[in-house]
Amino acid sequence: MQEKIKLLKEKLSELADLRSASAVLGWDQLVNMPVGGAADRGEQIATVEKIQHAKSTSDELGRLLEDLAEYSNQLDDDSDNKRLIKVAKRNFDKQIKVTSKFVEEFARESTVAQSVWEKAKDTSDYSIFQPNLEHLVELRRQYADFFKPWDHVYDPLLDDFEPGMKTSEVQEIFNVLRPKQVELIKAISEKEKVDRSFLFLDYPDEKQWAFGEEVITKFGYDWDHGRQDKSAHPFTTSFGINDVRITTRVKENYLPTAMFGTFHECGHALYEMGIAQNLNRSPLADGASMAVHESQSRMWENLIGRSKPFWNHFYPRLQEYFPSQLGNVSLDKFYRAVNAVEPSLIRVEADEATYNLHIMLRLELEIALMDGSMAVKDAPEAWNQKFKEYLGILPQNDAEGVLQDVHWSFGGFGYFPTYALGNLVSVQLWEKMSGEIMDIDGKIEKAEFNVILDWLRSNVHVYGAKYEPQELVKKITGSRITSEPYVKYLKNKFGEIYSL
Amino acid sequence: MQEKIKLLKEKLSELADLRSASAVLGWDQLVNMPVGGAADRGEQIATVEKIQHAKSTSDELGRLLEDLAEYSNQLDDDSDNKRLIKVAKRNFDKQIKVTSKFVEEFARESTVAQSVWEKAKDTSDYSIFQPNLEHLVELRRQYADFFKPWDHVYDPLLDDFEPGMKTSEVQEIFNVLRPKQVELIKAISEKEKVDRSFLFLDYPDEKQWAFGEEVITKFGYDWDHGRQDKSAHPFTTSFGINDVRITTRVKENYLPTAMFGTFHECGHALYEMGIAQNLNRSPLADGASMAVHESQSRMWENLIGRSKPFWNHFYPRLQEYFPSQLGNVSLDKFYRAVNAVEPSLIRVEADEATYNLHIMLRLELEIALMDGSMAVKDAPEAWNQKFKEYLGILPQNDAEGVLQDVHWSFGGFGYFPTYALGNLVSVQLWEKMSGEIMDIDGKIEKAEFNVILDWLRSNVHVYGAKYEPQELVKKITGSRITSEPYVKYLKNKFGEIYSL
Repeated sequence: MQEKIKLLKEKLSELADLRSASAVLGWDQLVNMPVGGAADRGEQIATVEKIQHAKSTSDELGRLLEDLAEYSNQLDDDSDNKRLIKVAKRNFDKQIKVTSKFVEEFARESTVAQSVWEKAKDTSDYSIFQPNLEHLVELRRQYADFFKPWDHVYDPLLDDFEPGMKTSEVQEIFNVLRPKQVELIKAISEKEKVDRSFLFLDYPDEKQWAFGEEVITKFGYDWDHGRQDKSAHPFTTSFGINDVRITTRVKENYLPTAMFGTFHECGHALYEMGIAQNLNRSPLADGASMAVHESQSRMWENLIGRSKPFWNHFYPRLQEYFPSQLGNVSLDKFYRAVNAVEPSLIRVEADEATYNLHIMLRLELEIALMDGSMAVKDAPEAWNQKFKEYLGILPQNDAEGVLQDVHWSFGGFGYFPTYALGNLVSVQLWEKMSGEIMDIDGKIEKAEFNVILDWLRSNVHVYGAKYEPQELVKKITGSRITSEPYVKYLKNKFGEIYSL
Repeated sequence: MQEKIKLLKEKLSELADLRSASAVLGWDQLVNMPVGGAADRGEQIATVEKIQHAKSTSDELGRLLEDLAEYSNQLDDDSDNKRLIKVAKRNFDKQIKVTSKFVEEFARESTVAQSVWEKAKDTSDYSIFQPNLEHLVELRRQYADFFKPWDHVYDPLLDDFEPGMKTSEVQEIFNVLRPKQVELIKAISEKEKVDRSFLFLDYPDEKQWAFGEEVITKFGYDWDHGRQDKSAHPFTTSFGINDVRITTRVKENYLPTAMFGTFHECGHALYEMGIAQNLNRSPLADGASMAVHESQSRMWENLIGRSKPFWNHFYPRLQEYFPSQLGNVSLDKFYRAVNAVEPSLIRVEADEATYNLHIMLRLELEIALMDGSMAVKDAPEAWNQKFKEYLGILPQNDAEGVLQDVHWSFGGFGYFPTYALGNLVSVQLWEKMSGEIMDIDGKIEKAEFNVILDWLRSNVHVYGAKYEPQELVKKITGSRITSEPYVKYLKNKFGEIYSL
């Protein structure tokens, strides 16, 4: 059996190497590649992924996993080998259920749909995109059907991002959360608006860059195992756990974009950098789920990066970087500005208090599209109606409404809820951590982040993808994912800022 | 048969994609990778190359090539398909002759030997490296034996870099060339030394960079299909013919390094960028050989970049970049300085008149090591003796003697002669081109390089690897590789500079 487990690990390492190679090709494409390289790069990535797919669905791998099933049963439930076999088996079983004919058709349609969506968004013309979206919804239903029986057609989609999680669980959580967030932003909307004008002054690129790097170096970002570059949309990517790179974008006339973007991506990166070395080059060298990943990015971006103790420490430093822009702006005024709550149309610009509502709206539409209770053609109206209901404002056109996100254009249904779940998990973990670290605010105020990072490493990061998200959250906090701590956090924070 | 040729092309495209993927991983490693990523990157490259090797030696590919042999016979000798099948068959036949056991052992030993060589070079202690070199020489002999029968044990090594070329041909060429170059530098050494002191002033990095980019943009380097970055050692790499990147290094207290380095790599890149699009993603999307490749880099670096008409145009511009350093240096003085001939110990710093002697010395030692007429332990002494004989000076230690180059440490015997052959070919092509382009000097003087690039594209670049090097040179110039034009060029150029 030792021979077989060794062979399994070899095969999984090879797959991990191919995934990393493909990630390097992708990173280079977004960060460095000259425009003329695009077509060939598409072929290169497709070739690597085709080989990866063939190897990850090979009969040989299947037999090996079957042979190891018995052995796995004898292992301790928390052992790396047990979990490795389990995750490898889960991935294998999922992949072989999907026909390669479908994989090809879906890849083709989603590539086409993305460029159609771009055009539709540019001209704010949903009708151009509608036929492609109809096809993608149909393909996603077919995809779900590969995994029958299920409780809900959306379950298999969600499972790709949140292993083991059910649609009904998410709905239950969101049903509790939604009215409370709606109520909160209603209360805030009756208060005076916060002045944010000074955030829109001219902030030179290099200084923004330098400040961001200074902060994340303090957070613990390890430059020997990563780097930061610019790209059109910020992202984190890893080539194994020893080379974890982040990107950001800088807006010279809006300070928050690069700054909080860098904190956010750093949070993702710290997660990957903290995974146990012995899980490297295996499917366990990954986050537990998208939501758990997002909990880490949101924690460093929001719970730390938008907190008062954080700015007590860093605001004087930021003023040194930008004396003419911020020299006359008080700490309190700055703190309120970067935490201002204002219902807005675009998700990626949403504040902490409204963000989840953007998500819940999308989830409801996705479910309705998938279960057929809403036709694709009716999505724009449904979008606007819900938007008005949850956020009190109305998009003026589809570009700033139903067409704003790229996700549907690549058939990425099931992805959105993970953003909101990540917010919830971040506060659940924070509550637990605060109970175990003495005077956590004092630590932040002194920029002593190592105790926080250590806690996250030993409680979250080190496990990689050994546990399913609900299992992991329960293991750490004693409770499955729940919205209560998040609501309490929002009420406290914004209650104080807006004197509610 | 059309089905089979289509299938062959698919398989070769897949192999080309994997080679490109591996090249991206390699480029990133040398240009961007954080230090901590090294070990994993090694695994990723090894995995991609292992898959590539398995696919390029598969029975299926072998059968396909056999099935196509008959069909190939009916094709026109210059047709792409005929040449594609020929080159694919040549590569396949070479690869299957070598056992995978050998490939593994060689890979392991050359990795170890490289780090041993670094240590040996750092401490100038040949004895540390000697056992590894002995092992590598033994492995290279074994490698040659896979290809028996041959005329000379060195033939199979040379063939890896110069397809179809024989050791005896190279020896014949060099035997004519050597005494003439020795004679020339002897004559020069009796003349007064040229003043080069102003090349060693402080030249700011960014300005060197900007000047280099300005020049190669005029050469025709296509930034939509390439980019320039910094690396410890300059190189050119391509991911298909639509993304061809160069690197350079900048020495702030020595102007020529970055400048001529950039011209040189640009020459390599223009070659790859000019290969016919219909050869892309095939083994023909490559240079004809290392020597032909080097002919292109040396042409832009030396025949153009170190020529008088070139500096007639660009020197005033360079003075604008560096007014305090060059404002008082005359054009003539500058031209003589960048063409100064001075026997020196280090190959990569050698001038046009001495460079080939460095190469010929290495070739003679390589051959003696391979045919057993010299023991590995005797290489340092043989090196020094020949050095004195050819260049009139003596290394003070092995670090600046026999240990200076990386090539032997990865077992790269057969590589060196291509550098000198490249010099010869560059002038052969130049002679031919000069006969066909009216007033080529006048064109250079006006920085009108497009007519030169067009000529190179249609006579050299477009063919990619369709022809073997001797075949290509003959096809273009009417003669196989010969040293006569090069000697004439050296005598003319340096005869004038040194009033010989």
